[in-house]
This record gives sequence, structure tokens and C-alpha cells, in this order.
Amino acid sequence: MTIRYPNGKKYVADTKAAAMKQTPLRDSYSNRGMTLEEDLNETNTFYLERGLAVIHKKPTPVQIVQVDYPRRSAAVIKEAYFKQASTTDYNGVYRGKYVDFEAKETRNATSFPLKNFHKHQIAHMENVEKQEGISFVIIRFTLTEEIFYLPASRLFDFWNRMENGGRKSITKAEIESSGFSIPTGLHPRIPYLSVIDKLYF
Amino acid sequence: MTIRYPNGKKYVADTKAAAMKQTPLRDSYSNRGMTLEEDLNETNTFYLERGLAVIHKKPTPVQIVQVDYPRRSAAVIKEAYFKQASTTDYNGVYRGKYVDFEAKETRNATSFPLKNFHKHQIAHMENVEKQEGISFVIIRFTLTEEIFYLPASRLFDFWNRMENGGRKSITKAEIESSGFSIPTGLHPRIPYLSVIDKLYF
Repeated sequence: MTIRYPNGKKYVADTKAAAMKQTPLRDSYSNRGMTLEEDLNETNTFYLERGLAVIHKKPTPVQIVQVDYPRRSAAVIKEAYFKQASTTDYNGVYRGKYVDFEAKETRNATSFPLKNFHKHQIAHMENVEKQEGISFVIIRFTLTEEIFYLPASRLFDFWNRMENGGRKSITKAEIESSGFSIPTGLHPRIPYLSVIDKLYF
Repeated sequence: MTIRYPNGKKYVADTKAAAMKQTPLRDSYSNRGMTLEEDLNETNTFYLERGLAVIHKKPTPVQIVQVDYPRRSAAVIKEAYFKQASTTDYNGVYRGKYVDFEAKETRNATSFPLKNFHKHQIAHMENVEKQEGISFVIIRFTLTEEIFYLPASRLFDFWNRMENGGRKSITKAEIESSGFSIPTGLHPRIPYLSVIDKLYF
């Protein structure tokens, strides 16, 4: 059953996504059927516990309409709607610097569709870049379990190409040459700070 | 009617809070019955639109249990619960630096009760400080409409005093001497970046 935002966009709940992506027979040691979000949560917890960075996923934005109080001790939200996020999903601090990113995965083998982003998010990333924040996207090709760090500045190039009538996706070859491969591991699973170290420190 | 978190803490919805705090006869020009949250949203929008900073309030964390789909175009959340925030409410970037704060108001005239914060938030602020982020709290005394910027490092002192058996609040005199008064204005209403400028740049 497909859940949709009021604007018609599909919503996939975290647990649903986890269930859908569960492929028990995968043989990769680093990713036993975990979603990108779960892997990033594990990574961020790893960084937090070791005092390396403080990066969190933001809560899903929800418009609350009705709240009931069946008992004094537990308010129940009885009517609410998903809102489209106006920013990216992850942000925080690493060595004094502001870090901000969005994470997306695709089952497409050869390219990454730009419809995975919406205009507000691109505008937000542009604002972050202007404030000298570290802005990027993490892209996972689920079929091959390859993960890339693509700097926001390069994403803007591809986004603008689309806006000017060009292709609506980024080819995998383009991501390979414009971005940085993140080798996945066990702890942390997606060591993206290593790319930030290389680029900024 | 009081809404409570599962742990018994009171929840006040944004709109409810706005309605409760609405005092149409207030004579202040700078704050016509606006809540602290509304004033900060206006301030952050002001900073964002002028390209001065990118600071957002995080969505209220909600645990979603049941979602219905009466039409293809609108998913309705039918059961959800408020979760306690594990971080602070506001964060973002200013001139490359990570900015992170919590905002609280009190109707108490002479002191600020520390029960307005919970342990997770203090731990989060400590983590942010260790990563060299800019961490602070904005405190409003609603009766006098005075607003203060209190650096997290000073908040920790008062928190630790409480943990060691001392008073469970910060006196207003202590806030005046440890923090910085933020003179309220029209645009922006709470110009807290001016304090950051003074302290960090």
C-alpha cells in the first residue's frame, strides 16, 4: 500500500522501508539488509560515543491537528499529516564546523534520478554553502552497495543542467568522477568523516 | 486540559502555547503577545532571507504508530506519541560555525527553574561544546519581556550546582552577570547573532 504526501509524493515509513529493503540472503558483511538510514544512524552513534562528531537525523516533520488525552499520562496524536521537509535530514558539528547532508538510495544501477531531491532542499544546501557550512549528499546504489559522497557544489551543477533542459539524473560515471567513494565498514558502517577530513582539514 | 508525555511531563502544542500566551493588551511594541518560539522563527527567517545565517527549529519528535490512507493523495497519521527531544530545538550555521541552542521562557520573576531542561539536552550541549560548536540557551522572562543569552558553559555550572545538591534554579541576578542581555527589536525581534559576534568573531 502506497502512502502519499498531500502533494501526491510517496511516503515510505522508516519501518516499512526497512522491511522492504530486508534481503536476508545478502552476503555482504558490512550491510546485512540495513537501510541507508539505519547505517547512518549507527555511524552517527559511533561518532557521537567516541566524541568525534555530533550529527543527528532530524525528526520527520509532522503537522499535528488533533491530540487526545485518554489518561493523564499519555497524550495520543489522533490526526496528523506528513509535511515536506524544508531542509536536509542530517546536520551537526564536526571540529567546530557545521555539517549538513541528505542521504538517498536508488535501485537504479547506472544513474541517480534527481527527483530524489526537491527544490527546497537544493535551496537549503545553497544557503548552507553560502554560510561556509559543509554540505553534501550521500548516495547509495543499493544493487551494488556502493556509497558515494557528492559535494553539494557538484550536485548544483547537475541540478542546474536539469533545470536548463538537460537530463533528469546523474550518471553513475559522473558521480564516480565528481564524488568520493566511501568504503563501507563494520564500525562505523559509513565513515563519511574521512571524506570531510580530506576535503576540509 | 493538560497534555502529558508518557513520562508525565506536560506537553504544550505550538498553537496552544500561542493561544495561551496571547495577551492582546500588552503595550510592548516589540512583542505583541508573541511566544518566544514565534519571535525566534521570525528572527531566523530574517537572518535566512538576508543571507546572514541558516538556523532552523527542528520538528517536534513524534513516534508514529498507525497511518491511514483514506485517499491516494493524503496519508493521515491516526496514532502517534510525543517523544522527548534528545537534542536542542534550534541549530544551524553562521559564518561556517555550528550554532546550537535551546530557548525557554518562564513566568517566574526572579529566577529560572532548571527543570526546564532535561539531562539529555545538557549532555547534548556538552557534546556540542567539545566539538567547538557555539552552544547556548535563550531565556525569556515573560513578565518583564527581558531576554538573555546564556552560554552553555555557564549553564553547566548551574546544572552541576544543582546535581551537587544546590539550588534548582538560576537566579535572575546570576543570569544577568553570567549571560548577555539581548535587546529586542522589530526586525529581527531577538538579534542573538550580535552576541555571537561579540563572543566569537
